[in-house]
Amino acid sequence: MTHSQRRDRLAAKLAADGLDAILVSDLVNVRYLSGFSGSNAALLVFAGDTPDVLATDSRYRTQAAQQAPDLETVIERACGRHLVGRAVADGARRIGFESHVVTVDGYDALAREVDEQRAAELVRASGTVEALREIKDAGEIALLRLACEAADAALAVLVSSDGLRPGRTEREVGRRLEALMLEHGADGPSFETIVATGANSAIPHHRPTDAVLASGDFVKIDFGALVGGYHSDMTRTFVLGAAAEWQLEIYGLVAASQRSGRNALEVGADLRDVDGAARQVIVDAGYGEFFGHGLGHGVGLQIHEAPGINSAAAGTLLAGSVVTVEPGVYLPDRGGVRIEDTLVVGERSPELLTRFPKELAVLT
Amino acid sequence: MTHSQRRDRLAAKLAADGLDAILVSDLVNVRYLSGFSGSNAALLVFAGDTPDVLATDSRYRTQAAQQAPDLETVIERACGRHLVGRAVADGARRIGFESHVVTVDGYDALAREVDEQRAAELVRASGTVEALREIKDAGEIALLRLACEAADAALAVLVSSDGLRPGRTEREVGRRLEALMLEHGADGPSFETIVATGANSAIPHHRPTDAVLASGDFVKIDFGALVGGYHSDMTRTFVLGAAAEWQLEIYGLVAASQRSGRNALEVGADLRDVDGAARQVIVDAGYGEFFGHGLGHGVGLQIHEAPGINSAAAGTLLAGSVVTVEPGVYLPDRGGVRIEDTLVVGERSPELLTRFPKELAVLT
Repeated sequence: MTHSQRRDRLAAKLAADGLDAILVSDLVNVRYLSGFSGSNAALLVFAGDTPDVLATDSRYRTQAAQQAPDLETVIERACGRHLVGRAVADGARRIGFESHVVTVDGYDALAREVDEQRAAELVRASGTVEALREIKDAGEIALLRLACEAADAALAVLVSSDGLRPGRTEREVGRRLEALMLEHGADGPSFETIVATGANSAIPHHRPTDAVLASGDFVKIDFGALVGGYHSDMTRTFVLGAAAEWQLEIYGLVAASQRSGRNALEVGADLRDVDGAARQVIVDAGYGEFFGHGLGHGVGLQIHEAPGINSAAAGTLLAGSVVTVEPGVYLPDRGGVRIEDTLVVGERSPELLTRFPKELAVLT
Repeated sequence: MTHSQRRDRLAAKLAADGLDAILVSDLVNVRYLSGFSGSNAALLVFAGDTPDVLATDSRYRTQAAQQAPDLETVIERACGRHLVGRAVADGARRIGFESHVVTVDGYDALAREVDEQRAAELVRASGTVEALREIKDAGEIALLRLACEAADAALAVLVSSDGLRPGRTEREVGRRLEALMLEHGADGPSFETIVATGANSAIPHHRPTDAVLASGDFVKIDFGALVGGYHSDMTRTFVLGAAAEWQLEIYGLVAASQRSGRNALEVGADLRDVDGAARQVIVDAGYGEFFGHGLGHGVGLQIHEAPGINSAAAGTLLAGSVVTVEPGVYLPDRGGVRIEDTLVVGERSPELLTRFPKELAVLT
């Protein structure tokens, strides 16, 4: 789908919502709708036939022309304010703005623009673009596939080249994995790589330290690659040396939970039921209190985006959404296991994008 | 300076501003004041003796205990709302909030909390913590020095190992440089590395492409390392093969401008005058229109922070601030030069943190 087609979808949504235009302030949403990826921008999209306008500052003049050649681009540091003035001048009366993104100070500036003109009103329109982004088009899925492939390949080389042997530090492992992703086509890591060994593996979001990998440890690695703006997300947990009984038990449990969660990824499924399908397996085994986070989340231009898959979620799974399934069991001061895949939800079985094996790998 | 000492400085500022407490929502500010670096948090700091409180969600329970052991930590997903309620309960009447960070939707949630209690008011307090952060303490400068050293070392290896030879692509150069920074102690790049060859070097903020480095090109590299949360920032421009007259001219011009800018970094100098000192050199040579951005900015826990050094800036240079000086001349469709250093402003000459040579390196 072209950026222009995405804006057409948004325009239809605006018309349905009774808005004449929307000021898009979120930079990820701007990128999704225009292709422009600079760090200061806003986009004005009209419900009707008035041509849309991109605003950015002078640093990005050339980049905007390259990335968004089909859009009029205004060079103006105060992007949002300028575009609201423009919307009013072009006759828009009800102008949506992203109330989940615009700050209180930012809103004041926009409101002054509308007040001066006294002819229009700003209307909260949070999540409008995010809802469109939940369903990925073919180009987006292609990039997500490449991002997952880069992560798969990097982890395969890390393991096969003995990169997880005792004596290395978490930090060394993380850096090597990030370097390997670059070698395999990533533009960078999609978030700060988590490498957690031994008791650290019980910390769901652990930052790599100088802790040394030791025989008997769980090593939990949660990482991803960024390709063309799209994020992959995968977690694998390994055991160094022989696995103890308790390690086999919780690994098997998390694997069964994750399988159950993946099997529940059906179009139209209630998001809470998907979470429940995986969670119940862990609860039934008596470990419910050690799985303290949601089951998964959408991934795309952001590492966390709609839909959230957790016990408080509202809504259902949509065809074409790309989500993670990542249950975990974390035993404080002992160790933890998380297994996470990124998958495309579709009318048939979900397509697995992260293909690195999930059998417990005991590295000796 | 410990995190607790930083909070003491903030408390004194609150008292002077007539605030009983402040809700810190900006995650970088939370990290600066508490040491906690998770992705969902808020911090409540009191002007008086009431103990400060950190809030985060259950994913970060262990990390918060490790990173902020001296703070009471509340586990609560809606961090800001909870802390405002707590402030009111603890008797705060005038509660500052970061109006430049809190979104319109977020403010509604905070305001509901105050309205329910009917005893307190929310007061805009934008930039309060950022103003403290402008002056770096010794620990911060040590980390900035390490970040700059990692970048220096990586660029030196890149150049000496023939990493900038014709035939490589911008993307390859960028990836190798980022990998080298990791090898030299960086936790990651401090922002998306810019490698721009030939005509691309005329784009101030160019993202690496598959464009191939060719003899006769300017190659502009703007990059930095991240160490312990602190960012370095440096730009160097090279010429591949023999330099043409026009290249020598604009390189010499930018180098002279940059020198003039560095020499203007005196405590108490008006920020606009610092910008002007460098800009005038380029304007006098007739190239003013090709230098379209500000001269520099503060660096620290963020790649861009206070102070901005540009023609619209207000204020003066403070001792202990760390800033960039980065003039450029960009000739559309031909090529451009930027030279950028990171320096510590002090009572004596500024201390240069980015030490890679600035003489024009002609790489053959």
